[in-house]
Amino acid sequence: MAEHDDDDALRVAVLGASGRMGSEAVTAVQQAAGMQLVAAVGSGDSLQQLIETGATHMVDLTVPDATEENVRFAVEHGIHAVVGTTGWDSERLTALEQKLAAHSEVGVLIAPNFALGAVLASAFAAKAAQYFESAEVIELHHPKKVDAPSGTAVRTAELMAASRRAAGVGPSPDATQKQLDGARGATVEDIHVHSVRLRGLVAHQEVLLGSTGEQLSIRHDSFDRASFMPGVLLGLRTVAARPGLTHGLDGYLDLGL
Amino acid sequence: MAEHDDDDALRVAVLGASGRMGSEAVTAVQQAAGMQLVAAVGSGDSLQQLIETGATHMVDLTVPDATEENVRFAVEHGIHAVVGTTGWDSERLTALEQKLAAHSEVGVLIAPNFALGAVLASAFAAKAAQYFESAEVIELHHPKKVDAPSGTAVRTAELMAASRRAAGVGPSPDATQKQLDGARGATVEDIHVHSVRLRGLVAHQEVLLGSTGEQLSIRHDSFDRASFMPGVLLGLRTVAARPGLTHGLDGYLDLGL
Amino acid sequence: MAEHDDDDALRVAVLGASGRMGSEAVTAVQQAAGMQLVAAVGSGDSLQQLIETGATHMVDLTVPDATEENVRFAVEHGIHAVVGTTGWDSERLTALEQKLAAHSEVGVLIAPNFALGAVLASAFAAKAAQYFESAEVIELHHPKKVDAPSGTAVRTAELMAASRRAAGVGPSPDATQKQLDGARGATVEDIHVHSVRLRGLVAHQEVLLGSTGEQLSIRHDSFDRASFMPGVLLGLRTVAARPGLTHGLDGYLDLGL
Amino acid sequence: MAEHDDDDALRVAVLGASGRMGSEAVTAVQQAAGMQLVAAVGSGDSLQQLIETGATHMVDLTVPDATEENVRFAVEHGIHAVVGTTGWDSERLTALEQKLAAHSEVGVLIAPNFALGAVLASAFAAKAAQYFESAEVIELHHPKKVDAPSGTAVRTAELMAASRRAAGVGPSPDATQKQLDGARGATVEDIHVHSVRLRGLVAHQEVLLGSTGEQLSIRHDSFDRASFMPGVLLGLRTVAARPGLTHGLDGYLDLGL
Repeated sequence: MAEHDDDDALRVAVLGASGRMGSEAVTAVQQAAGMQLVAAVGSGDSLQQLIETGATHMVDLTVPDATEENVRFAVEHGIHAVVGTTGWDSERLTALEQKLAAHSEVGVLIAPNFALGAVLASAFAAKAAQYFESAEVIELHHPKKVDAPSGTAVRTAELMAASRRAAGVGPSPDATQKQLDGARGATVEDIHVHSVRLRGLVAHQEVLLGSTGEQLSIRHDSFDRASFMPGVLLGLRTVAARPGLTHGLDGYLDLGL
Repeated sequence: MAEHDDDDALRVAVLGASGRMGSEAVTAVQQAAGMQLVAAVGSGDSLQQLIETGATHMVDLTVPDATEENVRFAVEHGIHAVVGTTGWDSERLTALEQKLAAHSEVGVLIAPNFALGAVLASAFAAKAAQYFESAEVIELHHPKKVDAPSGTAVRTAELMAASRRAAGVGPSPDATQKQLDGARGATVEDIHVHSVRLRGLVAHQEVLLGSTGEQLSIRHDSFDRASFMPGVLLGLRTVAARPGLTHGLDGYLDLGL
Repeated sequence: MAEHDDDDALRVAVLGASGRMGSEAVTAVQQAAGMQLVAAVGSGDSLQQLIETGATHMVDLTVPDATEENVRFAVEHGIHAVVGTTGWDSERLTALEQKLAAHSEVGVLIAPNFALGAVLASAFAAKAAQYFESAEVIELHHPKKVDAPSGTAVRTAELMAASRRAAGVGPSPDATQKQLDGARGATVEDIHVHSVRLRGLVAHQEVLLGSTGEQLSIRHDSFDRASFMPGVLLGLRTVAARPGLTHGLDGYLDLGL
Repeated sequence: MAEHDDDDALRVAVLGASGRMGSEAVTAVQQAAGMQLVAAVGSGDSLQQLIETGATHMVDLTVPDATEENVRFAVEHGIHAVVGTTGWDSERLTALEQKLAAHSEVGVLIAPNFALGAVLASAFAAKAAQYFESAEVIELHHPKKVDAPSGTAVRTAELMAASRRAAGVGPSPDATQKQLDGARGATVEDIHVHSVRLRGLVAHQEVLLGSTGEQLSIRHDSFDRASFMPGVLLGLRTVAARPGLTHGLDGYLDLGL
């Protein structure tokens, strides 16, 4: 729908505009250079707004029950989509890829995490893990979190373990013979993961890598959900140039080093 | 024996002089201002050397089987003693105090840890723990360590727990409902303690304290056993002015704030 | 005025109740056990409210022009005062002490910083600085801050320098011969202080102390001004038991170690 | 010379074998799987030893005055070379490339830093710097270091600045109006760099990247020059498969992410 665009600005609709993330996105799009907010769509509103307002891009920050239909509608109408809603299992992703095959000019980004720092930290940790003898993860969160370790820490550890396996690196050395139950943390595919819960914190993760005489630490601190907006904007700016489905914001980052 | 001391220098004998710690102490005493090394006593050597050389002070860095007799000998001959050897259980300490009662001018320091930073970190952590909602400990060591958590971390957690109990502070908030086994670490009297083992590290400990909107972190890094020597020298300089038994180097530090 | 207090709750008036800090204090007092908010006094309101509502305690979070009169009124009417407003120079403090001499049962706390973690970090840093060869300070703040280093960092460095002078410790060793201008930071009485400005941060400070083979780091992170409220409440709970003037929240903390 | 090699082990000569780094390399090669130490060449020894012992690979850890001739000799005799000696200016590099053009099967690696963690940290920092509003560097070293900032910190900052320029990112926001001289550190192409000197430390570097609501920190700690050996061994294992000149160990790392 770029042809509707008089002034080269992306014409962006935000779906889920009244939610916490959605309202942040509304503000971020309004303030971003090169973008125009054309629709803020709430939960009861009709998707026809996207057509009527000439949206070229949409951001979906709704709920798992609504996101699939929203994205399908976008694809069918040639609107590029940046999606932060969860609930995209492999069945849904397969159906979406089939739909995209018939609309080969449309780009869709589905990203479980829009914090650039978190995405980079995870990618760097996976890359570096193969070069060190020892690798562990510490994640630290506010004390209202119900699961431990965090989903991000588990995924980071899995990526690190895969990188080490591919390079033929064995498990981290560990001579522990006598321990208090739990002292050495949880084990995710040979990677020890420790979960701290502390009032005052939000969401933090530190990857520790060690070899004889040296340590590499990669830490990400997330203080506020405003940290997701630069990633959303990067997604909007890139999605039209990446037709088809991209899963994970790292696919849009220039990570060839 | 200060009356034997012509030039005001402390006349120091090092016992266990051929061990790793002992040989460091020999060097440290030789280089220290205001001290003179008068005897370096090895495992087969006679304690009569202390008398013959006019030692006013001794450092005991021997083994649990020898330390009690060494210290008793020192006390009986009016020699002040700084002791880093382990093995001083409550029975031995009681016997020593009785011995000291009959030699009221002699000072003895028995210290499980001579690293000033470690002693300060532990004291600060205990003091601060009562003022925060949340408190956890992370200790990080080389991967050849056989026990987890470290003895220092356990003692630090116990001191923190005691400080919180005395102030009527309850356990740290924790909403964890679902966890991988071990994720939340070991529990030492309500304090969660996490043990990292990483090639390249030596001995490190971080105490994390959190309340709404703020975090206080106290970290000690021990890179080398040379870090014990300033504490040994401080002990030697102070022990004559503190007759009787002092347990723990913190007793010599000016920690009234 | 505790005799007016039927139920043992402190009867608290908040002055400056419509300001940012004041409105946080209103909420904090309302939610605190053992306290009752009896007045929320705005900038145009009469101080007679304190009398009419039977306030036993007041919190002053107003402006430098108003605070002196507010505190004088409180003292004259036997109301204990916890003061976070700046502007108390030595002249005002002297006048206040004279006033308090005539009202010997009243307590006043004037505190430049109510964040318990910041107060403890500063006290610990000052105490520890005398035991290490090297001492430096890094402070990190949001990029809208206009002064560098922060006032807190300057005061911390001054306290550390005083502690080192008193113990006869010389300047930190430094062999730098060739430097880019500014690389070694600012110098506050022999202590190097480095100021980082980074989007995403709020207010953070790290004190680094080093000797051969070891490092002690004391870090405080302030994420939110809600972190001041525990200190305000601690002040309110303690002030009646500390008649006369106390300057600095550390005077109320149990810092004898 | 791999054809001389009965058992597939690399036949390695170490030049500069009596120096600090060289003697570490001798030990590392002796202990490494798949390698055989065939010559430990000191400063007065003849390079003919490389021929006589059938060396297929050499490590040059000598001095700037000797390294050029050593490497030329190696290239002329078909010996792959891994070089850690400094002094390779652009003139020498150009001459070496001409020499290599006539020996197209020979590989040479010239690396200013063999610590894998340092190389990775620098590459990650450069990559990530383009995605954050704010970027600063803190380097921390032992107090005997004569230059500030460290050469590594300057190079890291230059790489970060280049990455930001290429992506059109402006300077980090900074509202500082009033500062003590030096507080904001040195400036390397718009990147602020802070140098800490602390007894007990060796060589450490932390890159801080911040955007609204998040921070990414990448820290490398070098505790011991033993940390260079894994990089030397990686160089030896890879150099034969990379004919021609490679400058920087990062050229051998799998950094495509």
